[in-house]
Amino acid sequence: MRYLLSPEQIPSAWFNVVPHLPEPPSPPIHPGTGEPVGPDDLAPLFPMALIGQEMSGDPWIDIPGEILDVLRLWRPTPLVRAQRLEQALETPARIYYKDESVSPAGSHKPNTAVAQAFYNKAEGIARIATETGAGQWGSALAYACQFFGLECQVYMVAASYHQKPYRRVLMETWGAQVVPSPSELTNAGRTVLKRDPETSGSLGISISEAVEDAATHDDTHYSLGSVLNHVLLHQTIIGLEAKEQLALAGERLPDVVIGSCGGGSNLSGLALPFVPDHAQGVRLVAVEPSACPTLTEGRYEYDFGDEAGMTPKILMYTLGHEFIPPPIHAGGLRYHGDAPIVCNLVKNGWMEAVAYPQGKVFEAALQFARTQGPVPAPETAHAIRAVIDEALAAKETGEERVILFNYSGHGLLDLGAYDDFLHGRLVDV
Amino acid sequence: MRYLLSPEQIPSAWFNVVPHLPEPPSPPIHPGTGEPVGPDDLAPLFPMALIGQEMSGDPWIDIPGEILDVLRLWRPTPLVRAQRLEQALETPARIYYKDESVSPAGSHKPNTAVAQAFYNKAEGIARIATETGAGQWGSALAYACQFFGLECQVYMVAASYHQKPYRRVLMETWGAQVVPSPSELTNAGRTVLKRDPETSGSLGISISEAVEDAATHDDTHYSLGSVLNHVLLHQTIIGLEAKEQLALAGERLPDVVIGSCGGGSNLSGLALPFVPDHAQGVRLVAVEPSACPTLTEGRYEYDFGDEAGMTPKILMYTLGHEFIPPPIHAGGLRYHGDAPIVCNLVKNGWMEAVAYPQGKVFEAALQFARTQGPVPAPETAHAIRAVIDEALAAKETGEERVILFNYSGHGLLDLGAYDDFLHGRLVDV
Repeated sequence: MRYLLSPEQIPSAWFNVVPHLPEPPSPPIHPGTGEPVGPDDLAPLFPMALIGQEMSGDPWIDIPGEILDVLRLWRPTPLVRAQRLEQALETPARIYYKDESVSPAGSHKPNTAVAQAFYNKAEGIARIATETGAGQWGSALAYACQFFGLECQVYMVAASYHQKPYRRVLMETWGAQVVPSPSELTNAGRTVLKRDPETSGSLGISISEAVEDAATHDDTHYSLGSVLNHVLLHQTIIGLEAKEQLALAGERLPDVVIGSCGGGSNLSGLALPFVPDHAQGVRLVAVEPSACPTLTEGRYEYDFGDEAGMTPKILMYTLGHEFIPPPIHAGGLRYHGDAPIVCNLVKNGWMEAVAYPQGKVFEAALQFARTQGPVPAPETAHAIRAVIDEALAAKETGEERVILFNYSGHGLLDLGAYDDFLHGRLVDV
Repeated sequence: MRYLLSPEQIPSAWFNVVPHLPEPPSPPIHPGTGEPVGPDDLAPLFPMALIGQEMSGDPWIDIPGEILDVLRLWRPTPLVRAQRLEQALETPARIYYKDESVSPAGSHKPNTAVAQAFYNKAEGIARIATETGAGQWGSALAYACQFFGLECQVYMVAASYHQKPYRRVLMETWGAQVVPSPSELTNAGRTVLKRDPETSGSLGISISEAVEDAATHDDTHYSLGSVLNHVLLHQTIIGLEAKEQLALAGERLPDVVIGSCGGGSNLSGLALPFVPDHAQGVRLVAVEPSACPTLTEGRYEYDFGDEAGMTPKILMYTLGHEFIPPPIHAGGLRYHGDAPIVCNLVKNGWMEAVAYPQGKVFEAALQFARTQGPVPAPETAHAIRAVIDEALAAKETGEERVILFNYSGHGLLDLGAYDDFLHGRLVDV
């Protein structure tokens, strides 16, 4: 069963979790001065509206109508009860998911891409530079820039550029310029290429190129698809809609809210609006790959956001900014750190974290596809693994647990991973 | 703006156009006897319920609840007003599309695949054999068979099997057995392989293999994804929903209804419920590729449905059953004939037909993707080309034309075609 809201019922304000956090957020630190970063430090890269949101303590932030007009092209997204999966598991649990795969780019990423493009356009910016690994973020930003008449320059990790041509084509279809990174367009790229002409690149190098591009072009800003407070803020529309839709389904509150966690944006989008319900026993669960176990095995300390050490230092769980995880199929979960807001919640015991190897993740993905129908992205399948285990635990205890998770994206551009799994070629890490 | 119906508002009966046709349908002819084909002739291949629907003159046919339960996983599909496209075209026309791309298989095909799987299961069949070219039909049937606990054997044209591995993986994810055709599994396949071990196959050979498989296995039936009356019947749910949704949008009737046409199932699904509105001036338009101009340049005569000449002969527009069109990207429109119901309407002037070369089709696809967002399948893009030309004609005359078309499928597994178009490699036929 699907629970739908009409386009007019889209939330009109984002939910800011900052006033509800168990402890106040710690500021990012300037790597040169060792002092907290201020708005002026960020101005070369971001519009002032987003910098304001990044540092805001206001409980609600209105969503401009121009952003809502674009979001309404696919939002509110459906809330779906996964009854066929429940039946296959013979569980008394009721499983609901928020279907973010219905966006044109196929994931939750456009929720913030559209907002970021709007604010940049409003402040006179003509061009945005960004990096992308597997390509989900790059395609979402390409879409948003096309809609607001901005140029979009994407530095795509060279290995992905060559292995995942469909994601590159999707970005180009929406008008973006996409180059394999490292490229000849930046000093950072040229330096790496001179040292190692055959390099397959890394997200860290791509970030360096995109930041340099933005810093060296007056008309250009930089854009990030996860980790930062304002990105998580834009995603809270997911959880706000889900609350309305659970009520339509006759549920009061979920017992557990689950999302996969790379930088933290899809998880936070669904889970943050439930943080005020912590006192009522709503559990929040982050699911990460065993190959990149940031929350489950990382240290809680100040670290750089990028591999190259160019960004401010932020307080988070981290595997070290030079950590390079194995090349698992869930490319969107291969990040050495996590959003400071997520880490704050985990550190204080308001959110749990669990890690799975990708073999068990793809088993869950296949069970979902064969019972419910849709084929999930490898990232999303991490959440599904945890959902199935929660539902089986409820079966053990005979408990009518209400489980809510974020179906953050479809796997139609990841079918090569399924091919590997179905034919015994998946490396289980 | 999107116009949504709740899952409870799904139509409960299919619309049978046969009593409304301009002239009575002509029966299929047995190639051996020259006599009309009867139910017993079809019994080795199809369940009796479908044979009954194929020959029915009843105006409405109830949809079993078990079928509705599955369809409701994604239906009713949205009706979307393409306002950003209207604005880009500066047209006074109002453009609406029915978004059939939201099904798990990404097209309208599951509407009939689910029904066919249900009726086969109900009559004790354990296994279905079918052919697929580009893979849209095969993936829809794989999905439906998984849901009703049937085995699914797909003979996939060898060229597509090797060039489009993602479609093959999608079928396997839903549990189907997929072999490149010609295969060693049938006499038909072995004969071709002996003659030409390097053959890339054809839809005609694949049909021969699937029919032989069904005819030689007691537990197995054959299934077809277009052309036949019962297939078109199952698709009418699209147009029935669209009528309800146009009323929600404040429209009375569309001025013109447009769909791409290969075998005729997506066009008919949307258009047939509007056939009774012919007297009120509702225009119906079939759009086909210039490379396979069945309705615009074919002869109206009895011909075989397949290349090999094994099926009954049917009265239709045909380019000759041995016609092999150029390898355009819209693989779903490469059929030498068309559904007899569609041909009946065209022959009697109740439906128009127009043909476009694929260069102009991809121009339209790109304009749609860059204004509305979603990336259409190459087949669907044929309809969009005609929609844009209708909207521009309305601009010439200053007319408030209401245009309705079928967004039959997404192009996420066809991005290779966009790559060719964007980089000047598309062969324009």
